[in-house]
Amino acid sequence: MSLKDNIHALFAPKTVAVIGASAAPGKVGHTVVANMLEAGYKGTLIPVNPKADEILGLPVTKKIEDLPEGLDMAVIVVPVAAVVPSMEALAKRKVRSAVIITAGFKEVGKEGYALEQRLIELCTEHEIAMVGPNCLGLISTHDNNNASFAAGYPEKGSIAFFSQSGALCTAILDWALGENVGFSKFVSLGNKAVINEGNMLEYLRTDPNTSVILGYIENVEHGADFIEQAAKVTQEKPVIMIKSGTTTAGAKAASSHTGAIAGSDQAYTAAFRKTGVIRANDMATLFDLAQAFSTQPLPEGPGLCIVTNSGGPGILAADATEKSSLNMARLSNSTIERMKEFLPPYASLYNPVDLIGDAPAERYRKTLEVVIDDPQVHSILVLLTPTASAEIIETAEAIIEVSKKTKKPIFVNYMGGQRTRPGQKMLTDAGIPCSIYPEPLIKSIETMYNYYLWRQTPAQEYPEVRRNRQKARLVINEARSKGATEVVEFQAQEVLRAYNLPTPNTGLARSSDEAVAAADKIGYPVVLKIASPQISHKSDVGGVKVNLADAEAVRNAFFDITARAQRMRPEAYIAGCLVQEMAPKGCKEIIIGFKRDDQFGPLLMFGLGGIYVEILKDIAFRLAPLGRDDAKGIIREIKSYMLLKGVRGEQPVNFQAIEDILITMSELALDFPEIVEAEFNPVLVNAEKAVVADVRITLSA
Amino acid sequence: MSLKDNIHALFAPKTVAVIGASAAPGKVGHTVVANMLEAGYKGTLIPVNPKADEILGLPVTKKIEDLPEGLDMAVIVVPVAAVVPSMEALAKRKVRSAVIITAGFKEVGKEGYALEQRLIELCTEHEIAMVGPNCLGLISTHDNNNASFAAGYPEKGSIAFFSQSGALCTAILDWALGENVGFSKFVSLGNKAVINEGNMLEYLRTDPNTSVILGYIENVEHGADFIEQAAKVTQEKPVIMIKSGTTTAGAKAASSHTGAIAGSDQAYTAAFRKTGVIRANDMATLFDLAQAFSTQPLPEGPGLCIVTNSGGPGILAADATEKSSLNMARLSNSTIERMKEFLPPYASLYNPVDLIGDAPAERYRKTLEVVIDDPQVHSILVLLTPTASAEIIETAEAIIEVSKKTKKPIFVNYMGGQRTRPGQKMLTDAGIPCSIYPEPLIKSIETMYNYYLWRQTPAQEYPEVRRNRQKARLVINEARSKGATEVVEFQAQEVLRAYNLPTPNTGLARSSDEAVAAADKIGYPVVLKIASPQISHKSDVGGVKVNLADAEAVRNAFFDITARAQRMRPEAYIAGCLVQEMAPKGCKEIIIGFKRDDQFGPLLMFGLGGIYVEILKDIAFRLAPLGRDDAKGIIREIKSYMLLKGVRGEQPVNFQAIEDILITMSELALDFPEIVEAEFNPVLVNAEKAVVADVRITLSA
Repeated sequence: MSLKDNIHALFAPKTVAVIGASAAPGKVGHTVVANMLEAGYKGTLIPVNPKADEILGLPVTKKIEDLPEGLDMAVIVVPVAAVVPSMEALAKRKVRSAVIITAGFKEVGKEGYALEQRLIELCTEHEIAMVGPNCLGLISTHDNNNASFAAGYPEKGSIAFFSQSGALCTAILDWALGENVGFSKFVSLGNKAVINEGNMLEYLRTDPNTSVILGYIENVEHGADFIEQAAKVTQEKPVIMIKSGTTTAGAKAASSHTGAIAGSDQAYTAAFRKTGVIRANDMATLFDLAQAFSTQPLPEGPGLCIVTNSGGPGILAADATEKSSLNMARLSNSTIERMKEFLPPYASLYNPVDLIGDAPAERYRKTLEVVIDDPQVHSILVLLTPTASAEIIETAEAIIEVSKKTKKPIFVNYMGGQRTRPGQKMLTDAGIPCSIYPEPLIKSIETMYNYYLWRQTPAQEYPEVRRNRQKARLVINEARSKGATEVVEFQAQEVLRAYNLPTPNTGLARSSDEAVAAADKIGYPVVLKIASPQISHKSDVGGVKVNLADAEAVRNAFFDITARAQRMRPEAYIAGCLVQEMAPKGCKEIIIGFKRDDQFGPLLMFGLGGIYVEILKDIAFRLAPLGRDDAKGIIREIKSYMLLKGVRGEQPVNFQAIEDILITMSELALDFPEIVEAEFNPVLVNAEKAVVADVRITLSA
Repeated sequence: MSLKDNIHALFAPKTVAVIGASAAPGKVGHTVVANMLEAGYKGTLIPVNPKADEILGLPVTKKIEDLPEGLDMAVIVVPVAAVVPSMEALAKRKVRSAVIITAGFKEVGKEGYALEQRLIELCTEHEIAMVGPNCLGLISTHDNNNASFAAGYPEKGSIAFFSQSGALCTAILDWALGENVGFSKFVSLGNKAVINEGNMLEYLRTDPNTSVILGYIENVEHGADFIEQAAKVTQEKPVIMIKSGTTTAGAKAASSHTGAIAGSDQAYTAAFRKTGVIRANDMATLFDLAQAFSTQPLPEGPGLCIVTNSGGPGILAADATEKSSLNMARLSNSTIERMKEFLPPYASLYNPVDLIGDAPAERYRKTLEVVIDDPQVHSILVLLTPTASAEIIETAEAIIEVSKKTKKPIFVNYMGGQRTRPGQKMLTDAGIPCSIYPEPLIKSIETMYNYYLWRQTPAQEYPEVRRNRQKARLVINEARSKGATEVVEFQAQEVLRAYNLPTPNTGLARSSDEAVAAADKIGYPVVLKIASPQISHKSDVGGVKVNLADAEAVRNAFFDITARAQRMRPEAYIAGCLVQEMAPKGCKEIIIGFKRDDQFGPLLMFGLGGIYVEILKDIAFRLAPLGRDDAKGIIREIKSYMLLKGVRGEQPVNFQAIEDILITMSELALDFPEIVEAEFNPVLVNAEKAVVADVRITLSA
């Protein structure tokens, strides 16, 4: 049996032992047994306790050694000191999976950390699918399995939830009970010693009872695995996650909470984008999206039609629609003609369709039946304010009836409270999201539409990057052999050339004669730069001179630069000067760089040079590997993209040349894990070409 | 009696006549009478109906002519054709105020518009405080007055609400009933023919029963009045408004709804900012803020302390806090020492204070009592997740107890649903905002803190602008006398000089000799520009030459510019060339302009020149008149502000010089209503000074 098979045993175990079961109500070891029984667990449940004979009517096994071999699952609630011995004993009995509820491990410091390491070794060796330690347990409603000490048990449903925080499990469970929302699985991952979010995504992808996956994470420890699994599952089911610890204060709280070290928020955002995971920025959004995705079909286009009995709320909803990536569907003439037949003269036949305050349920029903047929309408938002003549229940019935005959999503805004509540409940129970505000509903439809687009997007092209890896390897090995953490520019350019990256025509000159000869060959004007492995900030020592127009100027510059460098940095080895071609006219400066994220690997960065990156922070990020679409996307994401497209009659820059550099840098980053950071700054780009004018490569120590 | 006195009669009438009262249940004329009776109205209520004898037990008056003179209020529900005659008859009986519920006026087109004009004339002549037409009516709970056909009646409370949309009144009323939120007044303003939001703000400012004012507006028609009243009332009570029709689609819906012409959203934003009105961007925020402001004191600082029984939710709340303008209060050592005395060892004593999942109510109470004393703590957010041992009701009691002893605001996040609901209700009933999500609560606290700062801000200085209005008047009159809608640059500079605005040293030269003489006087290098009233886009005809270094260059440029202009624009009168000093070195270009908004008057605009305004849309707005703080604020608001402060060791520009230009332009705009638009572009600014290098003044036709 592999770990993967054993995960299934966690959710659908045929035999379960509760290690530390207790006859005393109020104790966790009692609650777990009671919860299993109350959930209607159909397999064999064995309480284990050296002192008891019977717990909640079940015969007790005295010690682990007496348990049958090949047990599906053990739930561990013994004190922390007894956890490792228990697991050792269970491993001998060939247990397939375990839930360790007991706390006192990694989260409490060094000693706990060592204990947790021992658990990881044990579980890895014996392929035990272990959830926890330090968790609330897990629930699988379709298997009548409640291996937790949670205070409630949700209805059967199609939403799965896993969480790094037990408290969030508790909160969402209580919310589910309050709102009658059904769940398939609830997993409190605790310290994630063995089973983590990657395993959960992999398992839930093929779980027939789960159609929507929710997750709360504070950090991800196996980034590559997470990305692989997340990218696969989002092709089949939506995954909605809250990632906390996004800000400094949040991250601080995260560290002191479960010892989680929050990765950089940009990397997480890039990871979610890369994999199509939907990020919920707050709890309300998580709940709203869970309900929307689990009940309504995806809208297959941006056109939203609003049907309302009142103008003001219609305007508010239209405002929110225009601020989203949806649009107000333009109704066809035939739709409008059909509505004219039954709508009163003061009704507005255009979107928002205003049925006027006296609209009975029948008017709603007829209108919905007409607009739902319009090919420009991809989703519908029904608005109702509780006017004196509003038929709150009957209108809900009409909406439910229409929704059964269509594959377009319908959302309802009953704007009110007291009088609207029964209608709202009726709609929600029928699987039609109903809220008292229009804005969150529109946000949900927008998110669903974006997810629809994600599912439709064909797999992107990963262009092959021609390269001479061996040549680059030699350069980097040489730098490392000297203990350098920075590759000097002239050698870094070797690396770029090995990857066929466009570099300015450059020569290394050890004397002024050589400098003039190089300049003659390159063509005037040229740039001279100091070449020294110790001097990386060249301008600081006056080590750069531009626009040198003739041999005379080159000769003077050579003397000037080298003399100055020697004077200011007497310890530095001066190899001479680099002679470089000048930037072509009308160039724009861009910056392309990457930083290796601990969790997710190379995180590429793109922005316009100078103040755009430094002051305006107009930067976009993507995780490696970059495909053609990623490269296009990172460029278009920055606000100053318009400047690259050209303003006031300028020609656009050569975008493909930029994309190629981005894609190549991504490959370079993947080829050489010892490069921790690299930056091409500036890359000079005009309508014809892009050239990497300066480069900095930083190696791990 | 003035209109203002008569508004009081609307809310606290001693005698009320219902014109069009009906004995038939279901009719609006019946509902109004029934609503008055159910509200426990204590004055004299007179149904008026030519055919009935008794309605709901009240004796009926047959015709308006038989009503007593000097009636406080009439409620009009007769058919539209009978409204004007009824109002004429009521005016003769010296009625003081009226609510016209009947629709069919401005909102239905030309004929209705004419009827509404007649109503306005009548009410103005007789100083009748008229609400409507086309409205739901009004409610004043503290006066037992329900002059509406609304389907519910709220509890007495301190929130007032006025709305341009009757549907929103209906919705908010139903919400209030559902949530047990009390209101002081509900006013459906309808077409706002007489009583508008300005009157409401003025009246509610001194209404002792109102502590928070909510409003829904689609447009404002009397901008100056609105600003005057809003600025006054926000010094005493918070005003929270939803302005709809913010986007194109929204605005379109607004026009087709009540004939409202939505003003530009920038102008509204500027008007709210100028007056301290809090803008709610969605309904949820409106409701949240209404509850927060009406129940809790203002936080007197940014320090928020989070007290929680669970880590995950604590992190989410800390994230949201860091994204706001609040901060996580740094607890003092003595606070931490005091908490150590009773908190368990695994509790986190730092903010968020984590009491751990088993926290009983007593632990919450003790902790709250300690942190509330910390001077760094200005507001508190209590978090609770329904763990197995959570004491949901007892904790609510503890929070209520502590809140009674403090003047610091307390908000509560009971994260859950089913089990937490009774605690949530208990807290809400006790006036402590309690939500199942932390984020909206933090947003409320932030908004309250910003309002606190607004109340603390001393009145700003309005520097006196030295000017020669007469001189400017002559220039503008001359342009207008020639039917021009554009003031030519040389004359526009006259206007600037009349307002002591810094202009480049300039001379008008009619010949090349005069050009050289002028250049000699100004000092080289100079700029030459074509001077022709018909040529406003000078560069298009090659009419600008810069950096002219000597007399020879000036002479050649003069011939070249004038010849080219004559050839390309043979019909244009060529006055000669302007000779101007060159911009000083190291200047930055900024744009300062204004546009006259229909509702709110001159709307000033500020941004950096070129792409910052055109491509990045990095622009800020303020309404005239501009004080010193406004001028400072508009400059700091743009994202590229850092560029003016100076990057990479640059000196900051002379900010006061920019402020002075802004303040002066605002005065110029107020002095000359015939200027519809003006732009100083570019204004050149460096560390020493700012110069208006080019100017464009557009006059109304």
